[in-house]
Amino acid sequence: MIPQWIIEQKRDGGELPADDIRAFVDAYAGGSLPDYQMAAFAMAVYFRGMSFEEVTVMTEAMMRSGDVLDLSDLARPTSDKHSTGGIGDKISLPLAPLVAAAGVAVPMISGRGLGITGGTLDKLDSIPGYRTDIPTAEFRRILDEVGCSIIGQTARLAPADKKLYALRDVTGTVPSIPLIAASIMSKKLAEGAASLVLDVKCGEGAFMKKRADARRLADTMIAIGRNMGRRMSAFVTAMDQPLGRTAGNALEVRESIETLAGSGPADVVQLTVELGVEMLVLAGVAPDAASARLILQEKLASGAALEVFARMIAAHGGDPRVVEDTALLPQAPCIVDVAAPRRGYVAAVSADQIGRVVLLLGGGRRQTTDSIDYAVGIDRLVKVGEEVESGAPLMRIHARDGAAAESVAAQAAAAITLSIDRPAPGELIHEALRENL
Amino acid sequence: MIPQWIIEQKRDGGELPADDIRAFVDAYAGGSLPDYQMAAFAMAVYFRGMSFEEVTVMTEAMMRSGDVLDLSDLARPTSDKHSTGGIGDKISLPLAPLVAAAGVAVPMISGRGLGITGGTLDKLDSIPGYRTDIPTAEFRRILDEVGCSIIGQTARLAPADKKLYALRDVTGTVPSIPLIAASIMSKKLAEGAASLVLDVKCGEGAFMKKRADARRLADTMIAIGRNMGRRMSAFVTAMDQPLGRTAGNALEVRESIETLAGSGPADVVQLTVELGVEMLVLAGVAPDAASARLILQEKLASGAALEVFARMIAAHGGDPRVVEDTALLPQAPCIVDVAAPRRGYVAAVSADQIGRVVLLLGGGRRQTTDSIDYAVGIDRLVKVGEEVESGAPLMRIHARDGAAAESVAAQAAAAITLSIDRPAPGELIHEALRENL
Repeated sequence: MIPQWIIEQKRDGGELPADDIRAFVDAYAGGSLPDYQMAAFAMAVYFRGMSFEEVTVMTEAMMRSGDVLDLSDLARPTSDKHSTGGIGDKISLPLAPLVAAAGVAVPMISGRGLGITGGTLDKLDSIPGYRTDIPTAEFRRILDEVGCSIIGQTARLAPADKKLYALRDVTGTVPSIPLIAASIMSKKLAEGAASLVLDVKCGEGAFMKKRADARRLADTMIAIGRNMGRRMSAFVTAMDQPLGRTAGNALEVRESIETLAGSGPADVVQLTVELGVEMLVLAGVAPDAASARLILQEKLASGAALEVFARMIAAHGGDPRVVEDTALLPQAPCIVDVAAPRRGYVAAVSADQIGRVVLLLGGGRRQTTDSIDYAVGIDRLVKVGEEVESGAPLMRIHARDGAAAESVAAQAAAAITLSIDRPAPGELIHEALRENL
Repeated sequence: MIPQWIIEQKRDGGELPADDIRAFVDAYAGGSLPDYQMAAFAMAVYFRGMSFEEVTVMTEAMMRSGDVLDLSDLARPTSDKHSTGGIGDKISLPLAPLVAAAGVAVPMISGRGLGITGGTLDKLDSIPGYRTDIPTAEFRRILDEVGCSIIGQTARLAPADKKLYALRDVTGTVPSIPLIAASIMSKKLAEGAASLVLDVKCGEGAFMKKRADARRLADTMIAIGRNMGRRMSAFVTAMDQPLGRTAGNALEVRESIETLAGSGPADVVQLTVELGVEMLVLAGVAPDAASARLILQEKLASGAALEVFARMIAAHGGDPRVVEDTALLPQAPCIVDVAAPRRGYVAAVSADQIGRVVLLLGGGRRQTTDSIDYAVGIDRLVKVGEEVESGAPLMRIHARDGAAAESVAAQAAAAITLSIDRPAPGELIHEALRENL
């Protein structure tokens, strides 16, 4: 393997042989291929793209650079969900216990938030006592006993991806669809779930701004998963306004509990159920979407899903009483309303701006080493299409103190666009990409 | 300066501010910017190109990473020539003394050959005693006393280019016109010549295969030079067949001496004189091309140019008697003819193939650490348009022994294409890009 020949072939738009990609990634993971050759390769991929075959081989090589879990000995079928991330996206929290309540094991390895996008692990960390860094053996035990476990990535999971991601971050090679797909899928496939549902976010508050890009990322990840023998579905969903009515870690846990208890916001409930339907069908525990939906609605109505959430929290060392009493979650000392400047319909809620407000309040990280204030954020956020009177609340700010709340109030208000006419309703799920079963 | 922002801006096709380019190159030269960021940047430049302003700033920053000679105190005006390299390209050897004989100082810093392309320094090394590694002070003294000096690049000349070139070589970023132009010009401008004539080779035996690419490289280098206050001209010249009738180091020195003595091949004489004309006009010692041509023809006819060559050799420690007796140059023990398989006109002489034959004979380097056999090569090579009888010689092979000659004979013969009809004559100088004086 001559690394510069491989770089040149990709630079010139050629299709790389599988053995060359494997050798290239293996040498990088092993340390014999220097960062500068991988950086040039990544930039060539940015411009030239990769075929489904190429990106599958690259993903598999990165996956095999570390531990790959084998969950085939679990009694239940396995399925997982991955979201490309957005503002207020807490779906993993209600989804994992809901699907587990329906008899599917959900092995979920999640990440932390960076910039304006929140991370599932940070949300879980706001539950007193919850440990996301448990050993693999315990992860298996919880999957067996509870049915779902959400934990953090260990150093042994796809280390080649970890190394490549850090390099891409400083070489201008992050926004490449094949490299994004390989990065996500190398970690997700190492988890060992037999099926995977992707929620590819699209819009102002998402990494993918354009529908075509989101669709291409979804198609790429589906191809990788199928080429590696997994059952795959994907949704392309809207991320223009935040999901739900909360943004901020503990506030999103509260909203997740409300969702499982039957009083969640319509969009969170809808997306949780529809992603769950896909997982049940892929896992084979329901013959079709309609029967899967009935099962999930029953698990919500009966309280079974909420009970699994409590058991999952307890199994990870957390305080399960939070599901009954959300006041046990971290609470911000200062809560202030943001008032509508005039009467009107909510025409837009900028996910990006709401994300920035939460970041400014201390609820997110600018750098990976920043610490987080779990209590702060936004709740009671208006949704697009709603009518508000002049002076009525557009949202509530939860802040560490009055000065902090004051400092973001104008930006929070500016996140809401009011219109005189009622806006056309937007769609939450743009499209569903399903396997032909 | 945030390096990844600069990389991203170039990746997205933006025009970089001069200060950012300077800071980027300075940080790389100084070692604080890592190779992987420069590699990603170089690949982005490969795809996006650079404006004349951008490449000028980059060239100047690389030039200033090392010593920059100031030759303004020389009594004569200064001019230099640079060729992008081809097979049989020995033009620097007769050109420098010819132009010096006409009153222009020629400070020429040359390179070694790699692959099938020969290097001027290797040709000079075949002259017994000639030293190409003399100190700068002696270089100045020879320019003052003799009028021309051809030496090798010191470690202090454009070290940022040296570092970047080594990186480009292993990251698939060599064939980028702005990066090639910046590399050549950062070294050439550091020499301190007030004017520069470029010979951009184009064709099968050159790095630039297409006229449009050669023209763009010429335009880019002219723009860099002019933006930095130099007087510039460029020729785009043919490199389909080798220049002259010889290829190989000592054989090309002999042909250079023959050119200065009045018996050189027509193409070598023509290109030497025409490049010399440009240098005289740019240096201001002749008012126009016609009078410059007359001066140069007189310097050839009188033997003055040959005498300057002898003095230059002596000043560098070499044996000046070689100009009278070329038998003092290294001689190969085995000389064999390659016979024409049938009667016909020479339709093509593959410069690439002839270059490979010389390399196989030991006259070139595969890697920079290879040693060279100065005596071997090709002479008496037929030229396109000539008529040959069946069995008549197409060229002579100069080899270390009979086995070596035998091993390349078929490849040498295959380099010549014979046709029944007389081919249309090709042009040597495709175009001349001149300053509006």
